Amino acid sequence: MLRDKVNLAEKFSAFQDYRHPRIVGEVNDCHIKVVKLQGEFVWHQHEHEDELFLVVQGELVMRLRDREVTIRPGEFFVVPRGVEHCPVAGQETHIVLIEPKSTRNTGALVHDYTVEAPEWI
Amino acid sequence: MLRDKVNLAEKFSAFQDYRHPRIVGEVNDCHIKVVKLQGEFVWHQHEHEDELFLVVQGELVMRLRDREVTIRPGEFFVVPRGVEHCPVAGQETHIVLIEPKSTRNTGALVHDYTVEAPEWI
Repeated sequence: MLRDKVNLAEKFSAFQDYRHPRIVGEVNDCHIKVVKLQGEFVWHQHEHEDELFLVVQGELVMRLRDREVTIRPGEFFVVPRGVEHCPVAGQETHIVLIEPKSTRNTGALVHDYTVEAPEWI
Repeated sequence: MLRDKVNLAEKFSAFQDYRHPRIVGEVNDCHIKVVKLQGEFVWHQHEHEDELFLVVQGELVMRLRDREVTIRPGEFFVVPRGVEHCPVAGQETHIVLIEPKSTRNTGALVHDYTVEAPEWI
């Protein structure tokens, strides 16, 4: 299905809440999502899905069990399936996610932060 | 496989030639590629693969058979499988591609511009 081009800044300006991903595109079996994060998310993992985090504003610290990775604007990091991770942002951070359509934001964990069916914007 | 984070500007500074995509990441069944384009590519299509174009510098005009779409920095556009397209850049343009690992840059077309096996950088 042919969709319009997407301007990321416009999409980020369309919502203000944290930790709630929205879908802005699809490519093959993946969704492109946008999410704002401030503070600490929760430790979780995705059994079957790799998850790409591209930072466009702010700074994202990806805590892993044996290290942490700081991702700045213009940088991306891929968390492979099965790897426990906890995203943390000390300031408001804007993130583009690329992950299979089946991906739940909290992975195998059911939590207050779980968003079962993100909407398209 | 857990890889290091990727800084896109560093990757783009690592090569100078046009139309030659390099792989900089993988997520699920897709590769993340970077490519520089100046001038006109060739009309082609991908039978089985959607292709995402994210512009980070310059300006990309995606010619389709019934319209054209101008993609600027911070914007992305998805060309669905089966849709003929011809990317054109009036200036040096830096593009991030997200597409299945099976994707050939010229699709079903074999051409001087075909790169059969892009390398990782």
